[in-house]
Amino acid sequence: MSGSEQLARLFAPRSVAIIGASADPKRIGGRPIGAMLARGFTGRIMPVNPNRPEIQGLPAYASVADLPETPDVAIIAVPAALVADTVSALAGRGVPAAIVFSAGFAEMGGEGEREQARVVAAAQAGNMRLVGPNTLGLFDMRSGFYGTFTSVFEGGFPDVGRIGIASQSGAYCGHLVAVMRERGLGIATAVMTGNEADISIGDVIGRMVEDPEIDVIAAYAEGINKGDSFIRALEAARQARKPVVVMKVGRSAIGGAAAISHTASIAGDDAVTSAVLEEFGAVQARTTDEMLDIAQLATRKIYPAKNTLGVITVSGGAGVVISDAAEELGLDMPQMPAASQARLKEILPYAAPRNPVDATAQVLNDLSLLGQFGEAVVKEGGYSSILGFLTYTADAPSLSARLREQFRLLKDAYPDRLYVLSLVAGAERVREFEADGFTVFADPTRATVAISAMGTFGAGFARQPGQPPLTVPKVGLPSSNPSEAEAKKLLAQAGIASVPEEVCATADAAVAAAAQFGFPVVLKIVSPDILHKTEIGGVLLDVADEAGVRAGFATLIERAKAHAPQARIEGVLVARQLKGGVECILGIHRDPVFGPVAMVGLGGVFVEIVKDVAFRRCPFGVDVAERMIRSLKGAPLLLGARGRPKADIKALAEMLSRLSSFAHGQGEKLQSIDLNPVIVLPVGHGAYAADAVIEIGGGDGH
Amino acid sequence: MSGSEQLARLFAPRSVAIIGASADPKRIGGRPIGAMLARGFTGRIMPVNPNRPEIQGLPAYASVADLPETPDVAIIAVPAALVADTVSALAGRGVPAAIVFSAGFAEMGGEGEREQARVVAAAQAGNMRLVGPNTLGLFDMRSGFYGTFTSVFEGGFPDVGRIGIASQSGAYCGHLVAVMRERGLGIATAVMTGNEADISIGDVIGRMVEDPEIDVIAAYAEGINKGDSFIRALEAARQARKPVVVMKVGRSAIGGAAAISHTASIAGDDAVTSAVLEEFGAVQARTTDEMLDIAQLATRKIYPAKNTLGVITVSGGAGVVISDAAEELGLDMPQMPAASQARLKEILPYAAPRNPVDATAQVLNDLSLLGQFGEAVVKEGGYSSILGFLTYTADAPSLSARLREQFRLLKDAYPDRLYVLSLVAGAERVREFEADGFTVFADPTRATVAISAMGTFGAGFARQPGQPPLTVPKVGLPSSNPSEAEAKKLLAQAGIASVPEEVCATADAAVAAAAQFGFPVVLKIVSPDILHKTEIGGVLLDVADEAGVRAGFATLIERAKAHAPQARIEGVLVARQLKGGVECILGIHRDPVFGPVAMVGLGGVFVEIVKDVAFRRCPFGVDVAERMIRSLKGAPLLLGARGRPKADIKALAEMLSRLSSFAHGQGEKLQSIDLNPVIVLPVGHGAYAADAVIEIGGGDGH
Repeated sequence: MSGSEQLARLFAPRSVAIIGASADPKRIGGRPIGAMLARGFTGRIMPVNPNRPEIQGLPAYASVADLPETPDVAIIAVPAALVADTVSALAGRGVPAAIVFSAGFAEMGGEGEREQARVVAAAQAGNMRLVGPNTLGLFDMRSGFYGTFTSVFEGGFPDVGRIGIASQSGAYCGHLVAVMRERGLGIATAVMTGNEADISIGDVIGRMVEDPEIDVIAAYAEGINKGDSFIRALEAARQARKPVVVMKVGRSAIGGAAAISHTASIAGDDAVTSAVLEEFGAVQARTTDEMLDIAQLATRKIYPAKNTLGVITVSGGAGVVISDAAEELGLDMPQMPAASQARLKEILPYAAPRNPVDATAQVLNDLSLLGQFGEAVVKEGGYSSILGFLTYTADAPSLSARLREQFRLLKDAYPDRLYVLSLVAGAERVREFEADGFTVFADPTRATVAISAMGTFGAGFARQPGQPPLTVPKVGLPSSNPSEAEAKKLLAQAGIASVPEEVCATADAAVAAAAQFGFPVVLKIVSPDILHKTEIGGVLLDVADEAGVRAGFATLIERAKAHAPQARIEGVLVARQLKGGVECILGIHRDPVFGPVAMVGLGGVFVEIVKDVAFRRCPFGVDVAERMIRSLKGAPLLLGARGRPKADIKALAEMLSRLSSFAHGQGEKLQSIDLNPVIVLPVGHGAYAADAVIEIGGGDGH
Repeated sequence: MSGSEQLARLFAPRSVAIIGASADPKRIGGRPIGAMLARGFTGRIMPVNPNRPEIQGLPAYASVADLPETPDVAIIAVPAALVADTVSALAGRGVPAAIVFSAGFAEMGGEGEREQARVVAAAQAGNMRLVGPNTLGLFDMRSGFYGTFTSVFEGGFPDVGRIGIASQSGAYCGHLVAVMRERGLGIATAVMTGNEADISIGDVIGRMVEDPEIDVIAAYAEGINKGDSFIRALEAARQARKPVVVMKVGRSAIGGAAAISHTASIAGDDAVTSAVLEEFGAVQARTTDEMLDIAQLATRKIYPAKNTLGVITVSGGAGVVISDAAEELGLDMPQMPAASQARLKEILPYAAPRNPVDATAQVLNDLSLLGQFGEAVVKEGGYSSILGFLTYTADAPSLSARLREQFRLLKDAYPDRLYVLSLVAGAERVREFEADGFTVFADPTRATVAISAMGTFGAGFARQPGQPPLTVPKVGLPSSNPSEAEAKKLLAQAGIASVPEEVCATADAAVAAAAQFGFPVVLKIVSPDILHKTEIGGVLLDVADEAGVRAGFATLIERAKAHAPQARIEGVLVARQLKGGVECILGIHRDPVFGPVAMVGLGGVFVEIVKDVAFRRCPFGVDVAERMIRSLKGAPLLLGARGRPKADIKALAEMLSRLSSFAHGQGEKLQSIDLNPVIVLPVGHGAYAADAVIEIGGGDGH
């Protein structure tokens, strides 16, 4: 059976065995059976229990060997110590996939980790796929397959819908299901991945991309364990124009610790995960409400590649609230055409027709005016997204039906736009507007956030393949950390330029080099054993003359010996001190999940205090590199703010792309690179690394 | 009648006249009557209408003169052109206050502004207070006084409660009322201030502080027009331990423009308003949901002065979500005592007992365990705030009653804590938990934000009077902008030190001064006509020797003449270039509403790009100045980050306090001060202004 067929069976099985089945529908081994019976699962349900001939009205089987047929899926709800043997037995019967509820594995560390490895080995030996262990399982609202022991269904089942949920946490998934049930948001399927010993959240997202009845994927993640499948899934979703909204938690230090103790996740570096999500146009939600707001609106399947927002409101105040939110989100709100503004002002002198278009409460006295204002915004404004703020007026019995009519007319005439209403009304009335094609949020800020996300999806879907990474020759790395000078030579092979410099063994040589480069110069100690020179005072700036070079040379040698008596000292590096440039930092960090990741930031205080940096997986082209640079808060410093000369961003972007190619070509040996600072000179004068540190890894997987 | 008595009559009248009363309860002049009749207002309602003897079943009067008694309040719903005369007539009858619904005043500009001035003059002549014009009015849920024509009550009335709403926008206030009605949040009274020709949002907040039946004040503001009453109200609220949560909109440029066109607000500088709110411990909410969440929780009246959060959860995932939110909010989540952690781990080996205390879903199988875990968190953890994440489990029929019981026991034993539950349940079940004293939010992030706000209130209430501002002698300002050297002399009189320097008329004098100070020096052009020297290249740094001074002197004179041929040139300033200091910026900005406001920020790129500054109204003591400095994102640069020397923060704080006193002593003549940069030397070496610009205002109110 192919891997893809195996997954298909797992997520839409025709038959299921429950190992450790219970007669009590409130117990772990009983809940799946109870739920499937209640919801009319059409496949065969085969309880396995050595002590009972019948479970919840179904014939039960004493063991795996006694099963009358090979199920598509087995649910394993037996103690941890018995799981590996159970998996072997199931694999022996040719069962393609199992869901392992049992806990007591990697999430406990130590022996648990070893036990989990035994379970995985047993499954692999039998070519069997696993969900879990330590998972609440998965369910499919459409087929009635409930391979889960979540207790959320005690409060009722959610609606069947077109949102798929992929979650690393079982309990939090239950929370999402409960909130969606309350909000009337329909679910297609939900999968909780638990310890991810085999199937990871990326596999689940990938499967949901292939499911034609799923329009939107909402994912809850504490740390991505498997980068490849995650990235494959995100790219597949992008190509299929299927939005993925992710709530990645564990941003905080505390949160990160809690995430590790909760599942066996490696808490991925949050900045790296964010960069990966951004790379593929997935949207990161910061709260549960936000994730579900975005998922709800995304089911409209309208994703403007260039999102613009037109607002029609009966309250100027709401217009201000929305404008504030849009500005913070970077959501464009172009003004209405001047002619339209003038016309609207003629119709209603009290109106503020710019955008937000404040039609004032007067339009409620004559709803044909609302129609005229609405049409002006939609047709003449040409916005891709329309937000109508109607607040409680939409619920007034005297108004509601006619309001709906006015908006429905608009929507029918311009069906390609994204329509959102901010209104407060009873559930019944809200459902009517929703049925007409208007997504409803009471809070206008939440509406704006969701609208903005649709544009992020749209821009991601529309993104064309970028420029190829600049190619660089394969550079061989030494087996231990190179000195600064060696590091610069290695980088030079990849076309990454450093500041003119020379390593000098004697003070006389240093004086000669300085005279050749011109003053002022920088002096730095050179030793393979001293990685962070500034911390030992190993860098001297602004050395102005020969006497300074002589004195500085002596000082550096002394300091190096004082701090690291065993250090091999290769000499003192003399370099021209470049003036008038902007200091940046470029770096490479080997992420354990996503491999080498490049970083760019403004130098010095920006990196240190503001954490103003951009990340991206390696390798990438100059276009991406330039986008990264321009995304920095401090980018104006490079772009000529306040009369500064414009910096050579093109040279910096090329250096960044080359660096990404350099890192990509290396294996796990390359642990990190720091080019700090990189001096970016004015346009046409290039960018030069003034310092370089390359850290060689152990090749032990880190 | 005293002013305070007038306001008391306005907000709780015994009788009301409606000028322009309508028989149609859907019309502006009819709505107040309809609502008061529907809600059993006990005072006398006197409609005034020249054409009808009876209005909505009440006897009507032909004119103000015909009123049988002097009402406590008049509602004016007549065309704008008739308002001034109506106000005169009412004032002539001794009516203490009026609510002016009519629009067409300052919000329209031009003639409308003049008409509004006439209305104000008429009211002042008769010692009458005004709400509005252009207001939807005010209402009081307790007395049944509805001096408003909002249509929100068509959808029903909200509950009577202990939250007061003060809003500059009528329609947005209606939106708040509608959302509160849906959420079951009770309202005491709501006042919409409209154009604020007389009564402003500060007056309203002040009145609500005095109202013993109001526990929480929620305010919506687009721009504070009247600083004094606003500040008085905030301080009164703080002293009365009454929380004020403010949604200040118009943060964005677009939003600001919309705010001006909406009401006649001066869009106050958002940063200044934020600083004022922070000064008095008011909390700024960013969204409607957030404002109402905070108001809801605040009705519990528990405001921890030192807020710590203990979390008990049945989902590790939720624990991570909450930890992330708490870290971003700066809400402290100390770990559980080690002994407690060990004990809990013994009870439930799968538990993660650090904090968040993840009791896992296992406690749901034996709720006495939940009780044990809960008691450990509350008693042994000693947290001031407790957040329980129960999600849907609280709604399960099999669990809910016993869960409630466990939590109720905890609350009864430790009633002084703030208890919040994050759960998903039907409205009925939520009400039960609320009745037990637990505030319920479905979204754990929203719960955390609201809890954090209670600590902000508590810290504000507990704040002791700070140090007095440093006193400085009163310094007389010139009538036009002083030169840099003059500005520094003025500041020196207030004890604000500048870098050693001398203005030199000739190159020879400059060389002599430089030799005296020591190289390198800075050269700057000195002219009262050139305020921003850097923009014309009028500053030369790092001038290293005599030849440099001579060449620089000539260059500066040339540049000044080239850029401003008419400029009076007083010479070139020679100053010692201080090294090894941190560059900061201090400034004064005269806010049109709040008067002189002091600013401090890290210098250069921090101010320019990151907008990393702190504001405070003048004057203030050294303690406040130091808090401002430490609140900067870039503060680590001053505090010795990464091996830097610690900067002389004390000297900087003293300079800032002195500057605040200097500005406070001046009137409107002082428009602004820029000390940029201020060089803050290592501890013990002081802080020196290296440049100073004082801008003299026109004295025309700007």
